[in-house]
Amino acid sequence: MRALWLENRHLHLRDDVPWPERSGEAVVRPILAGICNTDLELVRGYYPFTGIPGHEFVGIVEEGPPDLAGKRVTGEINAVCERCPSCAAGRSSHCLKRTVLGIVNRNGAFAERLSLPYSNLHIVPDEITHQEAVFIEPLAAALRIQEQVSISTDQRVLVIGDGKLGQLVAQTVALTGCVLTVVGRHRRKLDLLQARGITTASEESIAKGSFDIAIECTGNASGFALARNALRPGGTLVMKSTYAGDLTFNASATVVDEITLIGSRCGPFAPAIDLLRTGRIDVEPMIDATYPLSDALAAFEHASRPGVLKILLRP
Amino acid sequence: MRALWLENRHLHLRDDVPWPERSGEAVVRPILAGICNTDLELVRGYYPFTGIPGHEFVGIVEEGPPDLAGKRVTGEINAVCERCPSCAAGRSSHCLKRTVLGIVNRNGAFAERLSLPYSNLHIVPDEITHQEAVFIEPLAAALRIQEQVSISTDQRVLVIGDGKLGQLVAQTVALTGCVLTVVGRHRRKLDLLQARGITTASEESIAKGSFDIAIECTGNASGFALARNALRPGGTLVMKSTYAGDLTFNASATVVDEITLIGSRCGPFAPAIDLLRTGRIDVEPMIDATYPLSDALAAFEHASRPGVLKILLRP
Repeated sequence: MRALWLENRHLHLRDDVPWPERSGEAVVRPILAGICNTDLELVRGYYPFTGIPGHEFVGIVEEGPPDLAGKRVTGEINAVCERCPSCAAGRSSHCLKRTVLGIVNRNGAFAERLSLPYSNLHIVPDEITHQEAVFIEPLAAALRIQEQVSISTDQRVLVIGDGKLGQLVAQTVALTGCVLTVVGRHRRKLDLLQARGITTASEESIAKGSFDIAIECTGNASGFALARNALRPGGTLVMKSTYAGDLTFNASATVVDEITLIGSRCGPFAPAIDLLRTGRIDVEPMIDATYPLSDALAAFEHASRPGVLKILLRP
Repeated sequence: MRALWLENRHLHLRDDVPWPERSGEAVVRPILAGICNTDLELVRGYYPFTGIPGHEFVGIVEEGPPDLAGKRVTGEINAVCERCPSCAAGRSSHCLKRTVLGIVNRNGAFAERLSLPYSNLHIVPDEITHQEAVFIEPLAAALRIQEQVSISTDQRVLVIGDGKLGQLVAQTVALTGCVLTVVGRHRRKLDLLQARGITTASEESIAKGSFDIAIECTGNASGFALARNALRPGGTLVMKSTYAGDLTFNASATVVDEITLIGSRCGPFAPAIDLLRTGRIDVEPMIDATYPLSDALAAFEHASRPGVLKILLRP
């Protein structure tokens, strides 16, 4: 089949990817798939991956059980063993033997077909457009924060980053009614947030120690430093992005100020689907362009330009 | 008055320290005071401090209100303003204007007299010896962990470090009934723990990803790395020690594994006093020597030798 193939930090289109490669799974024909920062990082070689990238998708089930066949679905990206200590303890997203769609040992969505275990799939309600459905996976990741950290209406929360992730995090955190501020560097992206009634600010205006919770969505050391500086003693720093290389921090100050740092990854699909179905989150303004799979290299080039939000592929 | 004085990383005895220096506070005559790793770090210049060190003490109130006068007391080390945002929010140990006994802008316990606000003092019950009472402050700090992280009987908890702090943390964590292991490098210190029925292990025997909670009590980068490596995905790393300089960590792995790092400092005195009063914590075997204040320099030299546990001063 035709697919976008990553090997040795090099992307190219292939028409000869063997299919099927896994039996006993649902076969999905992707309709749309989103390019995520993780995909850009895979190409930069931050993680070793050879195969088809792509883990944000909406598609049609071509082969699967009767309740799924023919249905429009999206899918959770971790395919798990259900038997290892993590799975047995109810933390299957941390399955020690997991494969991850388009990221770890499993071909992804930038292809004519993908396969996933039946239990990974979620039917997309009719009220959700294809374009919206591509955002279910990253929206679920944003909602993971609220599974880990309780956010109350009187808390001052700082979101750092106005990119794809920061936009979704900001919109979901805004739903808590907390005192939210988003810091970013791009006028257009900040305008999108302001149009939703979200307060934005410049980095320079953030007073030291003035936030209860800081959510780092840039993946840059400078974003981490800003988050740390913005927190009051006893505050919580949510690390929502991955980072290239190691981070250095003042550990003694972290101890003396009793700061909590918490890593945050994949989240719950059901509430993400519900937020989109009920129109409480607005994602379509984040789409900057859609390319056919045959133009995937141009799509990746576009996605990697500064200031660009979501680029979609039509496989 | 006579006191041990720290200035420009140099300790010396002085007989001419002015007294009193603060009005409106209780005056306490220390009976015994403990040398803490923080004191050794102050001498090494990790933090800027000029004045009298010492923050673990038991003493007699020489001047104070009727309910305190003549009583044997110990004291909380943070003297707070009760008005700043941290105090107003009930986080007075993080008072933005605090002074800290023997650590920040306040003379400490290695002296003939100290002063503290009345509300900082706790009466020491008669069942507690002078030697035990010196441990109330660090024991409270150990108990802080359980205010921050809930520990259940089925959780696997690793304490890293068999020194003064590790000993107290191990004994308090053992009270939770969790599955506890302590890693250390000193036979004599590990034997103290084993005598209390606590499981000890060598660093080499700790399997990657095998603990739910790791409590770092060494203040060394290698201890931090061991703690991180020992944690399962979703685990919690409690940073109980301060560190010289910055720490470097793999932030992406922390995100992907959804690790929580949490700094931990001062804790509750009342339960610490109660544990000593009821004999549920055993601290006297940790005392290696007691020196008169006039031999304070020798005491500090002794305290800084590898493998030594608690050294006391008799002011």
